[in-house]
Amino acid sequence: MSLLVVGSVAFDAIETPFGKVDRTLGGAASYFALAASYFAPVRVVAIVGEDFTEKERAVFRNRRIDLTGVERVAGKSFFWAGRYSQNLNERTTLATELNVFANFRPTLPDVYCDSSFIFLGNIDPTLQRSVLSQVKCKPKVVGLDTMNYWIERTPAELRDTLKHTQILMINDDETRQLTGEHNLLRAAKHVFKMGPRTLVIKRGEHGALMVHDKFIFSVPGFPLEEVHDPTGAGDSFAGGFMGYLAKAGRVNEQTLRSAMVYGSVLGSFAVERFGVERLTTLKLAEITRRARLFSKLTSFKL
Amino acid sequence: MSLLVVGSVAFDAIETPFGKVDRTLGGAASYFALAASYFAPVRVVAIVGEDFTEKERAVFRNRRIDLTGVERVAGKSFFWAGRYSQNLNERTTLATELNVFANFRPTLPDVYCDSSFIFLGNIDPTLQRSVLSQVKCKPKVVGLDTMNYWIERTPAELRDTLKHTQILMINDDETRQLTGEHNLLRAAKHVFKMGPRTLVIKRGEHGALMVHDKFIFSVPGFPLEEVHDPTGAGDSFAGGFMGYLAKAGRVNEQTLRSAMVYGSVLGSFAVERFGVERLTTLKLAEITRRARLFSKLTSFKL
Repeated sequence: MSLLVVGSVAFDAIETPFGKVDRTLGGAASYFALAASYFAPVRVVAIVGEDFTEKERAVFRNRRIDLTGVERVAGKSFFWAGRYSQNLNERTTLATELNVFANFRPTLPDVYCDSSFIFLGNIDPTLQRSVLSQVKCKPKVVGLDTMNYWIERTPAELRDTLKHTQILMINDDETRQLTGEHNLLRAAKHVFKMGPRTLVIKRGEHGALMVHDKFIFSVPGFPLEEVHDPTGAGDSFAGGFMGYLAKAGRVNEQTLRSAMVYGSVLGSFAVERFGVERLTTLKLAEITRRARLFSKLTSFKL
Repeated sequence: MSLLVVGSVAFDAIETPFGKVDRTLGGAASYFALAASYFAPVRVVAIVGEDFTEKERAVFRNRRIDLTGVERVAGKSFFWAGRYSQNLNERTTLATELNVFANFRPTLPDVYCDSSFIFLGNIDPTLQRSVLSQVKCKPKVVGLDTMNYWIERTPAELRDTLKHTQILMINDDETRQLTGEHNLLRAAKHVFKMGPRTLVIKRGEHGALMVHDKFIFSVPGFPLEEVHDPTGAGDSFAGGFMGYLAKAGRVNEQTLRSAMVYGSVLGSFAVERFGVERLTTLKLAEITRRARLFSKLTSFKL
């Protein structure tokens, strides 16, 4: 089924102990769309500048990614620069230049308005809400990502958007900040009162925890010998997760559990190379193989 | 089969946001023995002072715990005092009084010398080695715990003891410190060269990771709404783990995976109450039920 994502399409400068790139295609929506496209057709809503050229467009071509909703305007695209510590466990942001993103007013092309799976990437909650209001049919499921900035600065707007959200996908710190509760199970109960019935807590190398009001599911981080660039891991997770749900076409306990695994699979591939590179070379057979490795990694008999 | 543990039997003063105890039975060997006794008979090798009375002895009574090897000498028992932060994620040691533990020279009673499962708790590697040398038949499996203190101060002695160890059970920081390698999979390869073919990395609320030279297994931390006292979680994990192996009587991929789950089950119970309390009220049916919850927590279909 149709999956729509709104979020950033950007350029990143990334430095890790394994290398450095000055300018590579990035942004949450880019990682999300590439990851999700292995499972279902993806429609992207974003804004880019004149520096987004045929070269960048080509990365998405020949995949099931519709860029009709990517508005190109005068100016430069969103730019982010960051450096990771020796052990990749700390990240320093060196630059954040919003550029054309500062005036982003998402407009859905008519052909997007029947999207049944929607992912609201980490942008201003008011813009997330405006995307939802442009969707004509009631979507099957709405997923949402956010961050400390919006939790602090626009709490009322975030609360309003959360009322229309079924799946909240954030990290532990954001969960604690949003709910004012350190314990994640108790925090989830606060989230349930805000709207979402499913909380997916992304925990980086420690995997992800799903707290649904009827069940709990935990998936470990995939142990890798080499992580080259953690950028976009969470967005690739979200893409694999929502892409799998859109492919399944229904949201229930079993598909949510599998979505967690496929999200983790895509997140684990994303970090193997710089930027979106690994997501562009991936084969379906590799995804299936790694999903099976997740089974081996976690299965036991009592 | 017979399981032997050497380690500390102590008194603890513990302060957490949920309460405070001035003097409660503690020590790694206490947690280990109580946890393991749900699976197999346990033989304890430790030293205590005159303050270890009938009251403390009674905690172990009517369980399959043999205290013949607990030497009682003039003086006071090992004493530890610690305070946990509001979120239980940080611990400050307020006092460590070795007392009679400073002169601990473990001596195995004759009846212990045929022990086939052995756990060398976190004590001086030279003493760990001396315990092994007193075991007459070649043990089926030797597990070992250690800490930063021994890794820094007695590296040669630790290396020597590790040569006779099959399962190393430590936390992430200790793994990194011991091997000088941040990546846990690469760290495990260093450990394999030291002797153990199995590395169990305890990760607190994030669960545990087992890296064997033939397979990898991950178990999550059990999500709990209330953790009252994290003290002894790792030792209870070790007790559940080794106890299960001793009960199974054989060490293979399947029993190692199950041991990880039962270790996690016992660790998760231990933190529900102060000190060893929860380990003394636990029923076998509760253990079985929680082990099944671990299945639900982690199972999925592709």
